Amino acid sequence: MIVDQGLELLSEEESRTLLAGGEVGRVGITLGALPAIFPVNYRVIDGAITFRTAPGSKLSAAVAGEVVAFEVDDYEAADRSGWSVLAVGRAEVVADADMILKAKAAHLEPYVDGARTAIVRIAPTFISGRRLVHASVPRGD
Amino acid sequence: MIVDQGLELLSEEESRTLLAGGEVGRVGITLGALPAIFPVNYRVIDGAITFRTAPGSKLSAAVAGEVVAFEVDDYEAADRSGWSVLAVGRAEVVADADMILKAKAAHLEPYVDGARTAIVRIAPTFISGRRLVHASVPRGD
Repeated sequence: MIVDQGLELLSEEESRTLLAGGEVGRVGITLGALPAIFPVNYRVIDGAITFRTAPGSKLSAAVAGEVVAFEVDDYEAADRSGWSVLAVGRAEVVADADMILKAKAAHLEPYVDGARTAIVRIAPTFISGRRLVHASVPRGD
Repeated sequence: MIVDQGLELLSEEESRTLLAGGEVGRVGITLGALPAIFPVNYRVIDGAITFRTAPGSKLSAAVAGEVVAFEVDDYEAADRSGWSVLAVGRAEVVADADMILKAKAAHLEPYVDGARTAIVRIAPTFISGRRLVHASVPRGD
């Protein structure tokens, strides 16, 4: 276990497992030269982060073809436990019919009402994860 | 109430209230030309998002003087409810003794073990918030 200043660095496999189990993550993009972060509910399909958005929305326009950051985490304030996974990759708007069917089969439904018919996928080229470790608290896993 | 595609746009006052009540948020930065998102536990002190990090860490180096994004949200998968707040502003490493004392008084302690003695603050120049609204679910607030 590699620990860097109280954070255990997770293996890529562990990071992918945590990423695949998440429900809501955040996309980091640049919007008009300013950084922005938007939450999305997502699924991992064929190894790629996949979410729905509105066609022509700020998000779909901003991410199309761009390298974006995607983050998912889970924290408990009570015992200061938690982990986070960061994935970086090029985002693309999905036009492939097979992929659209897979997204439907994976029950990829946005939390939000309204027409979010565009499907965006991020195939990570870089993925890393970190977990809080406390010297005073025994960890069992 | 302004609703944009199933998302209620919150007032700046509401957004600031939600931001002030949060515990863990995410900082969006650029790291070696690539976007990255890091979770931090934070407090709002004198209207500024304030968190601790290690001096000389990637985070403190990356944010010093940069305009960064900060996001906090809360979601419930069960009823697809939730909100998010996005703040954008210049990040600065705090050197002012009064501000350091205020951070201590606000019990700004990192979840993570190890020496995180640098204090970073982001005074937002832009803040916005969105809340999920569902036509089919009555909202009481």
